[in-house]
Amino acid sequence: MTVAGGSVRVGVIRVLTTDDPEVLGAHGRILEAAFPGMRALSRCIADQPLGIFDEASERLAVPKVVALAAEMASEVDGLVITCAADPGLTEVRRAVGVPVVGAGSSGAAVAAALGERVAVLGLEGSVPRPIREILGRRLLGFYPARGMRTACDLFSGPGRAAVLEAARQAVRDGADVMLFGCCGLSSMGMAGVLRAEFGLPVVDPVVAAGAMLWEAMRSWRGSLC
Amino acid sequence: MTVAGGSVRVGVIRVLTTDDPEVLGAHGRILEAAFPGMRALSRCIADQPLGIFDEASERLAVPKVVALAAEMASEVDGLVITCAADPGLTEVRRAVGVPVVGAGSSGAAVAAALGERVAVLGLEGSVPRPIREILGRRLLGFYPARGMRTACDLFSGPGRAAVLEAARQAVRDGADVMLFGCCGLSSMGMAGVLRAEFGLPVVDPVVAAGAMLWEAMRSWRGSLC
Repeated sequence: MTVAGGSVRVGVIRVLTTDDPEVLGAHGRILEAAFPGMRALSRCIADQPLGIFDEASERLAVPKVVALAAEMASEVDGLVITCAADPGLTEVRRAVGVPVVGAGSSGAAVAAALGERVAVLGLEGSVPRPIREILGRRLLGFYPARGMRTACDLFSGPGRAAVLEAARQAVRDGADVMLFGCCGLSSMGMAGVLRAEFGLPVVDPVVAAGAMLWEAMRSWRGSLC
Repeated sequence: MTVAGGSVRVGVIRVLTTDDPEVLGAHGRILEAAFPGMRALSRCIADQPLGIFDEASERLAVPKVVALAAEMASEVDGLVITCAADPGLTEVRRAVGVPVVGAGSSGAAVAAALGERVAVLGLEGSVPRPIREILGRRLLGFYPARGMRTACDLFSGPGRAAVLEAARQAVRDGADVMLFGCCGLSSMGMAGVLRAEFGLPVVDPVVAAGAMLWEAMRSWRGSLC
């Protein structure tokens, strides 16, 4: 599984279409910073410049995610789908021979292990399905950033203030952990900001997915026990 | 949070009473092997030589776990309760000022992020509550090791064969991940055995708890961002 230098190659599937290498590589850089043994290869699906923000955009993305995963699988040791809705996760697992994790289920999993009143911060809309399922009774509530419909809105001027305001309400309601229900918050580097501001554990789903992939690669077919 | 040598001190709360340092340190050694930056301090609750194996033994353990955690908290950077039932987890979190994780919720969390048909292997009885809650529809089924009522039974001659037989049935039923619903299986080193035998990801809840504690310490009050 290891390559020269002892690092593992992680394929990062972005669901936000971009030709800007800085934007494309945002999640890969987060993974490389959090896990010094990882080297990220980032690619994005086509024709979704606003990413995934509702059921229709998720349905549209699934076959593209599966096709991209199939293309990347031979070049990497594991794949991460960095979207909180885990689009195509089940289908990709059936299609490729490397471990695959999604940011939604991974983030929810870490949050469920760290607390009992988890506040999900995200875009306007609803809590992504894998997060709702895994948190169950641990879901304190959903705290959307007012006026933010897509990840692109988040990156605009008022995005940061809207996230901070949502987080403030979560803390007032008694949250013991915060979790991002949108990976746009990861790209913005909000985890460090919120930890410093509120003194609570904040789960970045991209980092959580990296941790889960690390576990998966360790336990995958006994290849790295 | 770090101590001399850059390591973090993790308090391991064992719910199996023992005065054998080898037995006492079994989970601590697993953590130290999986996370080179961790140094484990292991202690056990009193008067439960058979550990936790049903609701009555769990209820009996909770106040002892809380008292032990309160004693250990000033000496460590984080605490792990290495029992799949997470006995006293909620109460300990309220009582101490360091991050606390339980093996049950941590193991279930990792399994939920790694697969969709999770087989829980364990003692005769039922699936521990935190595992049932977090897995939800991802729980394929419960595969108890026949005739094994307590962790001590597991360590006996027929324990290993009984676990292997349960795992075999799980694979026949289509499991895509195996999870230990009893940390006695961790002490026995069954994760490596099962991975080699069946070629599936096998989640050791003690290792999963270590990973979650690592995350928790990273995100705790912004102390190690």
